[in-house]
Amino acid sequence: MKQGLDRVFNPRTVAVVGDKRANDYMWLKCQTTFKGEVYSVQIDPNEIPGILDLGFQNYPSLADIPKPVDYVIVAVPRSITPRILHDCIEAGAGGASFFTSGFSETRTEEGKTLEEYIVRVAREAGFNLIGPNCMGVFNPSLGLRHDTSQYSGNGGKVGFIAQSGTHAIFFSLVGETHGFRVSKTISYGNAAVLESTDFLEYMSDDEQTEIIGMYIEGVKDGRRFMDVLKRAAKKKPVLIWAGGKTEDGARAAFSHTGSLSTNAAMWDAIIKQCGAIRVENLEQMVDTIKALLYIQPPPGNRVGLVAYSGGQSVVITDAFAKEGLSVPMLGAASYEEFASFFNIIGGSYMNPLDISWNLESIDGLIKSLNIVANDRNIDTVVLELCVPFLSQMWEYLPGHMEELIEALVAYKASQEKSFSLVLSPGQMEAEAARLGDKMIKAGFTTFPTFERSARAIKKVVDFHESRWNRVA
Amino acid sequence: MKQGLDRVFNPRTVAVVGDKRANDYMWLKCQTTFKGEVYSVQIDPNEIPGILDLGFQNYPSLADIPKPVDYVIVAVPRSITPRILHDCIEAGAGGASFFTSGFSETRTEEGKTLEEYIVRVAREAGFNLIGPNCMGVFNPSLGLRHDTSQYSGNGGKVGFIAQSGTHAIFFSLVGETHGFRVSKTISYGNAAVLESTDFLEYMSDDEQTEIIGMYIEGVKDGRRFMDVLKRAAKKKPVLIWAGGKTEDGARAAFSHTGSLSTNAAMWDAIIKQCGAIRVENLEQMVDTIKALLYIQPPPGNRVGLVAYSGGQSVVITDAFAKEGLSVPMLGAASYEEFASFFNIIGGSYMNPLDISWNLESIDGLIKSLNIVANDRNIDTVVLELCVPFLSQMWEYLPGHMEELIEALVAYKASQEKSFSLVLSPGQMEAEAARLGDKMIKAGFTTFPTFERSARAIKKVVDFHESRWNRVA
Repeated sequence: MKQGLDRVFNPRTVAVVGDKRANDYMWLKCQTTFKGEVYSVQIDPNEIPGILDLGFQNYPSLADIPKPVDYVIVAVPRSITPRILHDCIEAGAGGASFFTSGFSETRTEEGKTLEEYIVRVAREAGFNLIGPNCMGVFNPSLGLRHDTSQYSGNGGKVGFIAQSGTHAIFFSLVGETHGFRVSKTISYGNAAVLESTDFLEYMSDDEQTEIIGMYIEGVKDGRRFMDVLKRAAKKKPVLIWAGGKTEDGARAAFSHTGSLSTNAAMWDAIIKQCGAIRVENLEQMVDTIKALLYIQPPPGNRVGLVAYSGGQSVVITDAFAKEGLSVPMLGAASYEEFASFFNIIGGSYMNPLDISWNLESIDGLIKSLNIVANDRNIDTVVLELCVPFLSQMWEYLPGHMEELIEALVAYKASQEKSFSLVLSPGQMEAEAARLGDKMIKAGFTTFPTFERSARAIKKVVDFHESRWNRVA
Repeated sequence: MKQGLDRVFNPRTVAVVGDKRANDYMWLKCQTTFKGEVYSVQIDPNEIPGILDLGFQNYPSLADIPKPVDYVIVAVPRSITPRILHDCIEAGAGGASFFTSGFSETRTEEGKTLEEYIVRVAREAGFNLIGPNCMGVFNPSLGLRHDTSQYSGNGGKVGFIAQSGTHAIFFSLVGETHGFRVSKTISYGNAAVLESTDFLEYMSDDEQTEIIGMYIEGVKDGRRFMDVLKRAAKKKPVLIWAGGKTEDGARAAFSHTGSLSTNAAMWDAIIKQCGAIRVENLEQMVDTIKALLYIQPPPGNRVGLVAYSGGQSVVITDAFAKEGLSVPMLGAASYEEFASFFNIIGGSYMNPLDISWNLESIDGLIKSLNIVANDRNIDTVVLELCVPFLSQMWEYLPGHMEELIEALVAYKASQEKSFSLVLSPGQMEAEAARLGDKMIKAGFTTFPTFERSARAIKKVVDFHESRWNRVA
């Protein structure tokens, strides 16, 4: 199976069956970035000219394609899927993802019967059928995409396995705006033949993938899933977001991908026992991956907080302490150093450090960050930048923003301790998003709230700790 | 006390003592919108010309001001505060807020002694001293502000009581971007004389205030606070965000406002027993107020969800169910109605309703919303708009956005059941913020995530339920 999946995830030849104008030829357009060869299969004379106009070669059937096809994308009406599946098998294709929906997820007899049929045929032939009701593979380094808004070129370190196509696409796009790319993504829909465990096994062995994220609505063979998950989690962090954990959610999961979900307590136990990381939504998935990428092990739970705005210190501390992180007093030497230049009135140099009294002084900020980072009581440093305060200042201090970013880049390069930013948007959400972009492009890890920063850091601290315990 | 506070919250005359160029004359500039009379008190000859240039009358002392002063803003160095306090009392001022910091919150002997002194003097004279280390009153309908970025003109229905000036200002600004304004805000810093309970009592009686939000770092007389809170919560919703609830946070609270905090369990018990609403941060405060403003009692916990994007239904359902809301099946009549026009393949009309298969059809959307809203199993309707999907569509369908907003406005006007929006940003945070602005201006209540929407709705449902139980 694994051998076959390699061919599917890293194809040299791709065929798109049944793409059409009504879908804006989306599957072929996705492959304009593909580095290998793309063939179209379409027999409808009304559709063929549009395909040729896009510059693709079209064939009446898979059998007519002159080369072996590694990966087939099937977008035909559901009634034709059995014939196309037979063609795929006869042509010796490496595997196929069926975008076509209308199977078991509809709860109709017709849909269920059709799914049972293609499952039987694929199983008998040992054929790698992905889906149906899915978006298949995204491999950016090969330019193989499942949405035209996706990037191609350099791939990243994060493999994503998603039962839902929407989540698969969103994850790749949201991840990129937050500064990381995927190695490969798979959307597998109804999981009729290949399921999450197969893809987890593949990503676990894939060298390009250093972190694995999963969105799962259900698992068929729980025992096998746990075995594979345990092995995978020993090699690399595996994050699991289980959908359909609530009773109402389980009903929705069934109607989405025909999955029978496991309840929340069961999921939590499985994830913990196997050494994986539990996340509750896309936001937490992205946040925790960001934290995994910037926090170097062994991390500790003692946070040094520097707030570039007044009056937030209590709230910041609460946010971190509530998640189980510690915001300890600094060592005496640090306080002595602060006393030599810090104005006590209006600011505060406990921890969090409130440096709002001297917002314009970049030197003061960097000096303060270094004192906190060099303190033995501190494992990781978080700096809050309050967007409204900074925006106001930047109106009368042109160039300050660029200087600040430059100084922070130099600080980060010179310090070993983990460092991340919280960009508090206040009333300025659009401005905060823009500043976030700038900071991410400059190489920083950013979070929009203390809570999200704290939660992500805690998950990574816990992960490294439990990994250490399992190894020791 | 209450009589005096009326004069402070609704002054006709305001004096600013000690404003200076180094602060960019911020206190006088705040009052350029004030509808009554503003006087400056400053004796530094270097500062007076700048004050006169701004168009304010300047006097050498409070005693020289020709009219009785209702509210004094004190921004002098801390060593001068005792003299200014005496002047306020002698001039018969209604009250004063001391912006000056450097008192008990610094933990220095000097700061503590100074605070003890002004407390004794104010108490003996029965003088309304607010602060020190605070921003005082914001009353937009009088144009009395404590930050130049604040609005003036029409005031709103929400009174906000904040120990922290940063939170006071942020709350007013963030609230406005989310579609609501404050009636009055008070920032009271160290709470040396007047404390949260006094302001809660005032806001409870204030007719302009229909909802009260509080950010508290500590309470002096717990018994009195609970009595006042109980009475207030019977009249109007009171939301409490307690800062410094964690051990580390309590230390930060002490260094921020000199407060001795109460622990989390104690706060939770007090809030519950008094019938108030607990929130954990500014985000939850704003979200819950938005929900209070749009959900009409008696609300129920059965949510009808319509998702204008594919593949999110499981996640949406989980988010609502996790918070304790119900996402029930609709009635049989509704499903019959849907079956007459809904395409089952690719979409789903269970609940959540996934209408991604027909994204362009505004008629289909409104028809669907009405079926859900008219269903007896449903108490409140939530529509998800997925920003990336819509943005993509709006590129080739100009005018669709305006038509959609117009149709939704008409739907909302014609339906009695509560209705709100979730605007999923995906990778498009800046665009989502812009669309959010548009939707809020069109009168909708919006949330950026299912989780935040669910939590806010649940808090309001619980509040109305417990209120009903207390009354019944």
